[in-house]
This record gives sequence, structure tokens and C-alpha cells, in this order.
Amino acid sequence: MGSSFGQLFRITTFGESHGAAMGVVVDGCPPGLALDAGALQADLDRRRPGQGALTSPRQEADAVEILSGVREGVTLGTPIALVIRNRDARSGAYDHLEHLYRPSHADYTTEAKYGVRDHRGGGRASARETVARVAAGALARQLLARDFGIEVVGWVDGVGEVRCDGVDPETVSRAAVDAHPVRCPDGAAAAAMTEAIEAARRDRDTIGGTVACVARGVPAGWGEPVFDKLTADLARGLMSLPAARGFEIGEGFASTAMRGSVHNDPFRMEAGRVRARPNRSGGVQGGITNGESLRMRVAFKPVATVFQPQETVTREGEETTFTASGRHDPCVVPRAVPIVEAMVCLVLADHYLRHRALTGAPGPIGGPGAA
Amino acid sequence: MGSSFGQLFRITTFGESHGAAMGVVVDGCPPGLALDAGALQADLDRRRPGQGALTSPRQEADAVEILSGVREGVTLGTPIALVIRNRDARSGAYDHLEHLYRPSHADYTTEAKYGVRDHRGGGRASARETVARVAAGALARQLLARDFGIEVVGWVDGVGEVRCDGVDPETVSRAAVDAHPVRCPDGAAAAAMTEAIEAARRDRDTIGGTVACVARGVPAGWGEPVFDKLTADLARGLMSLPAARGFEIGEGFASTAMRGSVHNDPFRMEAGRVRARPNRSGGVQGGITNGESLRMRVAFKPVATVFQPQETVTREGEETTFTASGRHDPCVVPRAVPIVEAMVCLVLADHYLRHRALTGAPGPIGGPGAA
Amino acid sequence: MGSSFGQLFRITTFGESHGAAMGVVVDGCPPGLALDAGALQADLDRRRPGQGALTSPRQEADAVEILSGVREGVTLGTPIALVIRNRDARSGAYDHLEHLYRPSHADYTTEAKYGVRDHRGGGRASARETVARVAAGALARQLLARDFGIEVVGWVDGVGEVRCDGVDPETVSRAAVDAHPVRCPDGAAAAAMTEAIEAARRDRDTIGGTVACVARGVPAGWGEPVFDKLTADLARGLMSLPAARGFEIGEGFASTAMRGSVHNDPFRMEAGRVRARPNRSGGVQGGITNGESLRMRVAFKPVATVFQPQETVTREGEETTFTASGRHDPCVVPRAVPIVEAMVCLVLADHYLRHRALTGAPGPIGGPGAA
Amino acid sequence: MGSSFGQLFRITTFGESHGAAMGVVVDGCPPGLALDAGALQADLDRRRPGQGALTSPRQEADAVEILSGVREGVTLGTPIALVIRNRDARSGAYDHLEHLYRPSHADYTTEAKYGVRDHRGGGRASARETVARVAAGALARQLLARDFGIEVVGWVDGVGEVRCDGVDPETVSRAAVDAHPVRCPDGAAAAAMTEAIEAARRDRDTIGGTVACVARGVPAGWGEPVFDKLTADLARGLMSLPAARGFEIGEGFASTAMRGSVHNDPFRMEAGRVRARPNRSGGVQGGITNGESLRMRVAFKPVATVFQPQETVTREGEETTFTASGRHDPCVVPRAVPIVEAMVCLVLADHYLRHRALTGAPGPIGGPGAA
Repeated sequence: MGSSFGQLFRITTFGESHGAAMGVVVDGCPPGLALDAGALQADLDRRRPGQGALTSPRQEADAVEILSGVREGVTLGTPIALVIRNRDARSGAYDHLEHLYRPSHADYTTEAKYGVRDHRGGGRASARETVARVAAGALARQLLARDFGIEVVGWVDGVGEVRCDGVDPETVSRAAVDAHPVRCPDGAAAAAMTEAIEAARRDRDTIGGTVACVARGVPAGWGEPVFDKLTADLARGLMSLPAARGFEIGEGFASTAMRGSVHNDPFRMEAGRVRARPNRSGGVQGGITNGESLRMRVAFKPVATVFQPQETVTREGEETTFTASGRHDPCVVPRAVPIVEAMVCLVLADHYLRHRALTGAPGPIGGPGAA
Repeated sequence: MGSSFGQLFRITTFGESHGAAMGVVVDGCPPGLALDAGALQADLDRRRPGQGALTSPRQEADAVEILSGVREGVTLGTPIALVIRNRDARSGAYDHLEHLYRPSHADYTTEAKYGVRDHRGGGRASARETVARVAAGALARQLLARDFGIEVVGWVDGVGEVRCDGVDPETVSRAAVDAHPVRCPDGAAAAAMTEAIEAARRDRDTIGGTVACVARGVPAGWGEPVFDKLTADLARGLMSLPAARGFEIGEGFASTAMRGSVHNDPFRMEAGRVRARPNRSGGVQGGITNGESLRMRVAFKPVATVFQPQETVTREGEETTFTASGRHDPCVVPRAVPIVEAMVCLVLADHYLRHRALTGAPGPIGGPGAA
Repeated sequence: MGSSFGQLFRITTFGESHGAAMGVVVDGCPPGLALDAGALQADLDRRRPGQGALTSPRQEADAVEILSGVREGVTLGTPIALVIRNRDARSGAYDHLEHLYRPSHADYTTEAKYGVRDHRGGGRASARETVARVAAGALARQLLARDFGIEVVGWVDGVGEVRCDGVDPETVSRAAVDAHPVRCPDGAAAAAMTEAIEAARRDRDTIGGTVACVARGVPAGWGEPVFDKLTADLARGLMSLPAARGFEIGEGFASTAMRGSVHNDPFRMEAGRVRARPNRSGGVQGGITNGESLRMRVAFKPVATVFQPQETVTREGEETTFTASGRHDPCVVPRAVPIVEAMVCLVLADHYLRHRALTGAPGPIGGPGAA
Repeated sequence: MGSSFGQLFRITTFGESHGAAMGVVVDGCPPGLALDAGALQADLDRRRPGQGALTSPRQEADAVEILSGVREGVTLGTPIALVIRNRDARSGAYDHLEHLYRPSHADYTTEAKYGVRDHRGGGRASARETVARVAAGALARQLLARDFGIEVVGWVDGVGEVRCDGVDPETVSRAAVDAHPVRCPDGAAAAAMTEAIEAARRDRDTIGGTVACVARGVPAGWGEPVFDKLTADLARGLMSLPAARGFEIGEGFASTAMRGSVHNDPFRMEAGRVRARPNRSGGVQGGITNGESLRMRVAFKPVATVFQPQETVTREGEETTFTASGRHDPCVVPRAVPIVEAMVCLVLADHYLRHRALTGAPGPIGGPGAA
């Protein structure tokens, strides 16, 4: 249980890090979408390990195979199964982990839940699972782009104590984000972040960070007013990412120190359209989009695998000391960027279809993408 | 759509703020639970408006009627329908709002979605909807207490610039929280918070704040490893609350500035049990509980209703000025405390049943509540 | 669990036969539907007991109260809660049943499941539960009629050994069905059925029967190709009715004796439209509608309450003899007609929204109702 | 949408008949099940085409690859992905079908729904999809056998006009069923069925039939009292099979001609256990199992592919004549037997987990398998 996401644009992922393959079934992708397989693979490549000094050297081509649901490049409306084989799985490197619990990993909790676990590479709890999310998210992204011109762009806006607050969410591009390996579009901040990551690595340690994300072009009216607020589903999607520890929309925690008169977004008419700016609400009011850009942030804790001795216990309940080795990112946030984007795309595609189901969208008064 | 929450302990709420009634159907509450109707009503009373200077003067007894699913005080395993009538609904006070959109309220987005709306008191988007959540949460709380001795306690840990960081999550009690109307168990902080709220009110303004919450006694093994991580479902539940803008678990955003060697919780054996302290993980690793207390926080933006002139537009697209009047809280966080607790209880009850379904809990290696 | 039906047009029912009330929450009814409350009540009145010699003399006005989701007669797109109070519940008549299991009733199985039960009037297992389905079905019916002109008409086509095969599904009307209390539009058959029911009653016995149903005007393209075939969802909906023992679509069991060359419906063009007649397929091919009328039948076993001594056992496991008394229909099929129709309407409304979600209906090539 | 089945033991299938592969993801299989891969493959082999004169000569090894969720032969509690490659797909044989609709196939309805379709071999609508159900059903079967000793056995009990009513559901075995290629355990009936199928084939025609199925050893208490009655979910599962046209439980349609005094199953005590015999109820009362064997039947229409000229229309709306060729079964019921069994196992496994979730089964008063 728990491996599905979305109600109508619904994905189900599978795969252990060192099993045969990772994969996803997308059930609910509308028919007639001309799938850009190259762009799908490009999204996967952005997430791929082994891309540089900042990330794990595990080498995976992550070439995706489409098993169903697409014919002659066009979606059929039937389930789309995507499989990515695991190739560079050095499972032997994990043999010594079968009988102990790595601190702040999911080893202990997995065993507490299931009584059995695949200890190799973290099994199902491995961040490798997110490759399936990115593959599915690429489909969602293409659907949203075709039907509404929606753009979803994420970037690293914090590593350790380094913050980058100067990015304009209305204009930042994926190209600008990818210009630096740390995936922060502000060059000075990017350099400082890189140094912070390198310093952690030198210290045989790891470090946390934050990813910001914007979705531009989302029509007004998406989301549900009570439990399935768009904010709630975004939070669920992003807090389901490995190492995620916090989520905020719009001004987030900073809004708590504001007065209402400052935080409120007055409505004005511009070019015949209702606008709500400066968009402190982050594009959502009462859980429903208002046509402004969605703005959110996710906090990722430092990677649990540090290369220093740590106290822990064995499966048999004996205390011991554990020192990690192997291939691990010192900081997840550069690779988290495409994963965050994928989850945002998945949430939006689902609410697109949900809104269409309930109202026969594009909707009575429409937003920017309604035409 | 969107008015249901939970997969197995599943609730469906209904009601508009100025309609006939609010209510909830709980489908999935196990049979044989001796329902403490007084405690249920007490939970509702904690959320009730009109309780003091800090909250809206709307007077609602919020007396709950149990329509089904309980016989002679014991749950039958069938759906439990709870109804709370709306009585003090001064709908006439909202007539002037039928044709304009209050800034940062859900008026515009509701109409963008549905084309129609009940403008009286915010309709379905009103925080009055949460009365149904609290009623259902009371059932969940009693189930969790009976089967595991779980305690869920929330408190206000921030109002505006005032923070309260000294509360011990392992010992704080609901009685201590309720000792001050602002629901902060630290007297000095509570006084400062009260002053901050009063200052906002004097300025015809509003102010935001944060609510912390702890769940003690949750067994190890609850939660799913991928999308339905306990963290993800808690985030969804809490970010679905009106005015919620941020969520964090454990160290949350603060963890991003930490090194892994600092953030990790080493495992140790204590009294024959695996412990993970100082619990920076907030009781969850890889989305699954580890037997430590769950610790989380929610950010609430300042209330959108300020008693000052604001720019806005009408349904007809004409710009105008709006000055609010009526009954509104200057700060939501004191009343948000029981609502936050209710959502946490609902998430936990759902995962209790999900864990039992998959594994035939209490589970192979068990946590503190497994015995 | 198990008290919800539908994925998008989703209903959740509640209530025990002798509890405070029966009710339903409809979440997913599109906004802007002008609700005909009189027609809704009329649908309930058709199901109501105490209407004549053939049905139970229990007197219930079954007046429905709308608690939410409708304002000034128009649906808001929010959950619609409908409550029907139980008034003529003579619970004392059931006291002697608390400790024994009535044969072929749900007494034993309910207790095997829950360990507790409300024995009064069958509790949740009572056919009184269907009043909530009829109320929700009335909303679905009005939606389908408004958007597609769909008509759903059921009738009794069998009681005991009496069959009525001459009804034309393309023209039969609810008025014709209601012209005779037994709800068979063929006068001669209706008379024979009435006599069969009266004979059973005279013998202190009960008798079974079948209900046929047609849905006219359903567009081509509704239903899903695999598990959620329209046939499968209709089967589930109708087999969830109390006392249902069989379901068939089109030629049903009779098709098994046919050759393919006889059973196949050749396609022809008529008035610019693809037709598939003589419609042995019953309007569905591969689980998806083809634009022809849906034709189906449901088998209902004889009512379990017979007024003769029967062997049974007590809760304590002692064998005993039980002779029923009280108010019970000798045959359920006349009252089952509106209930069957309601379930068909609910299935269709759900698939209407599901089809719209996936494809942005009315769909590329359309059916009769697509224009 | 529509490719998932089950709420807790939940499967999602994918694949087009002439695409790269068929497959299924099983999310919700409990951890710790020692998977018998040989028995799984044996279940697939029973469904495989090309097994004899009565079935399609398409040759598919149907060798299953397990991509995830199983390690060292034991289920991990994580999603189990099973893939079966399509190998003998002679897609060229379908080129002439791209522009016309085969009568009583899903060609027209698929196109009415999606606007696009994979015409090769019926695409998603092909009965080849059921290979994924059988693979998943094998897991369910093994779980039910391990935990309760449940046995699920299906057999052909009708082909055309030939009926076989003498099979004892309490003792019939899969071996006895498989002793004859037509899968009827009664030799004389089997011979007559074979002749009926051969006669149809000689006439370039096809013929329908019925499959009976029994599930022995199911504990009392499974199923939900309202919409998710076990009968309803069995009906949905079985009516979702290709060519299914009817379903019945217990005495089914025959019950409608009975009096209640005849149909009722009196309760008696035997060996300390409540029994309900002669089991006309088919093991279910009020939607919940009573501990007796489940007995049900499914009607399958004659195969739509007949090798005779038939009237039809093209995609462009022109009338034409179509004569089928290629590889097709003249009668589906022999191969439908393992498919029916698989669906029954899937429904039971799901309700096993649902019952355990709600009640912490084995349950308060238990049935035969509760101990």
C-alpha cells in the first residue's frame, strides 16, 4: 500500500534500489497526447546520479522503456507503464548492513513495519525510487504544457546557512537553473552553496538545503475547498520525498509574523483579468488557485549517511558503532530539483482532471489558461 | 469532491457556514469502542467561538447529535454520522459581500471554480467547517487512547514575532495548554502573545502564528514508505486547514542548516527497546514511525479579514474598496490548537488501521505501544 | 468502511433502521444544477413502505431534509447532505431477536464481523438503508436528464414463476410501470404477479422476483475498458442491493446458449449515426457504452422473513425455533424498482464525470447524447 | 483510469495485446509470504493459449518476470511488479482492421471513448489483459491458502445448451477439472461440451457458456454490509471479465422462483460451529460471509469473432462487410476457468485485509478459518 499517488492522473510506482528495476504505471493520462520521449528522458537525466562532483558516483543510464499505453508516439488513454532497469547496483557493498540499523535511515522503521526488508541500498526506501516519479512527472509536465502552457521550474534556494532570495519566480528558467551544477540560478549564491557542500564532504559529513519551485500559467479554479486543497496535495506530494522535513506555500512560515493588512493580496483588474498581487498567497486562496503563480519551498534534512563513526544497534538489539562507506550524495538538493518539479506536475495534472470532471472546465469565469 | 479524508478511518464532512448544519460521517471506526460523548463534546467546546476576548463572538453551542453508528454508547462498526446545527448565523451581515471578492479570502477562487457560491460567512470555505473535523477527531483520539495510550497535545508556539521554544513535548499536557486563553503553556510567552493579538485588534488588523503538536505513544511501524509516508499524510492533513501556510516535522526548516552528524539520531537500547534520540527526526524515519514522539509545527497566516479599507474587485470586474465588519478572530491560532490535534488524530487512526491491514499488527518487532 | 459508492459522483450513506435517521452525503455533484426537490421527494415516495397491500405497513413519511450543498435551489458543487428521520420504528418488536439469528438474514454474519450489532430492524443491514440511495440517485437522475436527456426506467419482469417478457425497453415509461401496484407495465402479467404475491402471503411465506431496467440516451464512450467496465460497476451497484442474487446485461445468461453469429449486433449507419442492433449487447461492448440503450436485470431472492417456524440458533450457540412476526414485505420487487433505478443513475453519473475527466467529453466521435 | 482493482490488496494492470508487454503491480500484499513461483507460473500456464484444439493457437510462453517486491523468494510488503512479454504478436494480421469496427467487439466503443485506439489484437480490450489478473490472483491464492487454507476451484458448467449440474462444490478439485480440456469435471458433460464447441467451429461460428466457482474455507465475517458486500465485489470482479454477461451467487436467478420457506438456510450447530445449510445463500448473507462455501456462476457470451461475413461500418461511417480470420477461441469458457478463480482470489484477499483492518481479525466469534 502507499505506492500510488493522484486520484485521476494516478501513478503507482514499484522497485527496490537493488532489485531488477524501478518503474511506474500511469493510469489516467488522457488519450491523444503526442509524447516527447526525448524530453521525458531529459527529465530523467536531470535526476540521474553520477553527474558531477556534487552527487553520488553511482552510474545508471536510467534509460526508460515504455511497455504500454503509447502507440506511434501518442498516448492511448490506457495505462502507461515505464520501466528503468537497475544496472550499477553494487549490492555486496551492503552486506554488512543486513544486521544493523543505520542512524536516521529507514532501516529500523522498515523492519519495525514489515519484519523483513531488502537492506541493499535502502530497498524501497531508497531515493532511487524517485526515478519513477520523475518519469511519470514528465508525462504530466507535457500534458500541462500542451493544454495550458504551464511551466514548472524548481531551484536550490538554500544549502546549509547559504540562502538565495533574489530569484524572480516569474522569469526564472530551467536553463538558468541548470547553468550551475548546484542548480541555483544566482551565480554568487551557487558558488557559496558549492563551497558549503564541498566543506561538508571534506569533513566526511553532509548538509541540508531547500528547494523552491514555481508553477506559472495555472488557471484559476483548480483545487478543492476542504481536504484536497491544492496546498494540501502539494504538501503531501512534496513531503513524501525522501529527506523532506518541511513545506511552505507563498510566504509560508514568514507569514506568521505578518499583519493581515500586509499579507493580503488586493484584487485588481489588469488586461480584463482579476489579479491578486504581490502574490503573498502563492497563487492559492482557500485551497484553490487564483491564477497567479504557485510559489512553494521544501526543506530537505542533511543526508543521513555520514562517513564518521556513529552509535547504533543491531537487529539483535546490541549496541555497536557504524561508519558508512559507499556512494552517497553529500547534499540532496541539486538532484531534488527535478524531483520536486515532477511532484508539482503530478499534483497539477491530477487537479486539472478533477476540476474538469466536476465542472466541465475550462470553467465559468476562467483563469489565464482557460481560453 | 475533496470532502473526504483517510483511507480506512475515513471521514466525509459537509456543511456551509450559514447553511442548516455542519456534519461528518465517519466510516471505518472499529466496532466496540465505548464512546465518551462528554469528551467528544469537550473537544468541540475547545474549538468553539465566543469563548473570550481573543476569539470571534459568534455564539454557537455546537451541540453534536449522533445520528447513526453508535448504540448504547458503543460503536457498531457502521458509519457514524455527527451533525452540528448552525444557529447564530447572521447571514444578513454578508449581503454586501455577494457581489465582491474579499482580498485573500476564497471568494474569488470559489467562484472561479464553481461559478456559484454561498457568500454567507464564506460558505464551505469557512473555518466553521473544522467543527466537523474536531468531532471526527474526537472519535479517533478515543480509539488511539484506548488501544495504545496515545496522547496528542497541541499548543501555540508563536504569535507574530513572539516565539515560545521552551515547551517540553514529552510532558506538556492539554490542561497546561488550556490554562491560558491563548493556549500557550509558557505563561510569559502567553502574555506576550496576548498582547500581540490585542495590539493587532486595536490596529483593526490581524496577526499570524504557529501551532506545535506532539503525539506520544505511537508504536513503531506506522506509515508507508513512499507516497503515504506518515509525514506526507500529516502534511496533507494539516495543510488542509484554513489559513495553513507551512508544515514541518522534527527540526523542519532548521534541519537544512545542520550537518548530518548533528542531525542524525543515534540508536541506543533502553529498557529493552530501541530508542532514537534526541529525536531530531520527530519520530519518523523514511515516512514510518520509530516509536519516538511525533513532533510537528504548522504555520498560520494572519486572518484575511482586517477592518481597514482594502482594494478589491466586484464580480462584474469593477475595482472598488472594501472595509470588513462583523465577527472575526484577530488571530486563529488559539482556536487552531484543537483542530490541529484533531487532524493528527485522524491521520494516526487511519495509519493504525492501514498498518493492521497490511501486517496483522501489532507487528513483528513492535514499538512502545505494541504490547 | 464500505458505505461509499462512486469515484467522482461519490455518495456515502449512514443510518440504522431503528436509529435516529438515515442519510447520505453526495460529494461530487456538479455545481449549478437546479434541484427539483419535488421530484426528489417523489422518487423517495415511490420507495416508501406502507403504500398498499403488497408492501410493509411501516409508516414513514420519508421527508428529506437538505442540510448542505444547495442554496436557493441550486447545487453549489459542495457536499450535499440529505437526512431522512426514522419515525415509525417499533423497536420493542425486535427485543426477542437480540439473542438469536434469523435464518438467511444478516444477523449472524453481522455479529461474526463486528462482535456487536443493532438487532432492531436489521440495523445497518435493513433494506431501509436504500432510502439514502434513492435520495442520492434522484440527484444523479436530474443531472443525467439535464445534460443528456437520459431516462432510466425499471419494472418488475418476474415474480415467482410468472414472467413478463413483452415490455419494449425503448418505450416503457415510469407512468406505465406505476399504473399497477406490482410495478409491471403488462396488465395481465401484473395481475398474475399480484396473485403470486398474495398466495405467498396467505401461506405465511414470501416469494422472489426479477427487476428489469433500461437506460435510454446514454452517449457512446462511457465506462472503462478493464476493471471499471460499465457492466462491472452496474453489477456491483445492483448486487449491493439487499436480497440481490443475480445480475445480467443484454441477453445475460441466455446468451450462453447462443452462437456468435446470432448474438452479434451488426453495425449500421442510421441518420448519420452508428447503430448496433438488435442490441443483444445491451448497450455495452468491451465495458464501454455504444450509444444503444442499456438493458439489464436483477434477481431478488424471496424475503427471508417467513411467518412459519424455522430452526435456528442463539448467540449462545443453542438450537431453537423461531417464528417471525412484525411488518415485512412478502416480496421486495415492487419496491425494488425505484432502488434499482437509483443505483443505475448513480453508476451513470459517476461514469459521466469520469469520462469527462479523462477525455474532456462530450468526446471525439460522440454518441446520441454528445451533441 | 479503471485499471486498478481492490482497496487494500490492490492491483494495477497494464498492457496492450500487441504492445511490448502485459503486466501488473500488486500493492498491498502482506510481507513475509514465501512465494511459490512455480505455482504462480502454473496458474499462468492454465490460462495460456495454444494448449489444444479448443483454444487459440497463439503461442505465448507467458513466462513471468518479477521486477520488485520479492527478495529471496519472500514478499517484502512493497509493490510486486510482474511482467509478461508479448512475443507471438502477429500484428500485421490486423492491418485491415484499423479502419473498421468488428461487430460486438470493443473497436467502436474504444474509439468513441478515446478518439484513438490500438487496433492490433484488440489492444487494451483484448482478453490477453487477463494474463495480468491471473498472475496477481496467484499471489492472492497463495496468501489465502497459507492463512486460512482457502481453496478456490472453478469449472465449466455450461456450453451452449449443454449443462452440467452434478458437480459437488464441496469436493471438486482443480485436478478433476483439468482432467478434460474443456475443464468440466463431469466426463459425460465434458464430452458433450467438446462436441458443441467443435460443432460451432465447424460452422465457422462460436458459442457461449458458463463457469461455476466455489471458494471453500472462507471465515465468517468477510465483506461489508452496504455497497461493498462481498457479493457486490465478486460481481464487479467477475463482470469485469471480457465477454461476461451475467453473474449469480448461491441459487441466483433460480431463487426468484422459490418461496422463502424453501430458500432459507436454517442455522444449526455442528461440531461447535454455526452452520447454514443447504447453503442456498451461497455462503453470503447480507453481503457478509457466513462460513459456508461461496458458490457463484458467470455467464460468458459467444466469442464475437465469427468466421462468417458480417455487416459493419468503417471509421469513416461507410457500411461494409467484414469476415474475420486469424487465431481465436471458438469458446472462451475453458480458458476462463483460471481467470474466474483469479478474480475470486483477488476479491477475497482484499476483503481479508479489509476485515483485519476494521476489526483486528480473526474476529470476535469467528468462522471455520478463524482459529
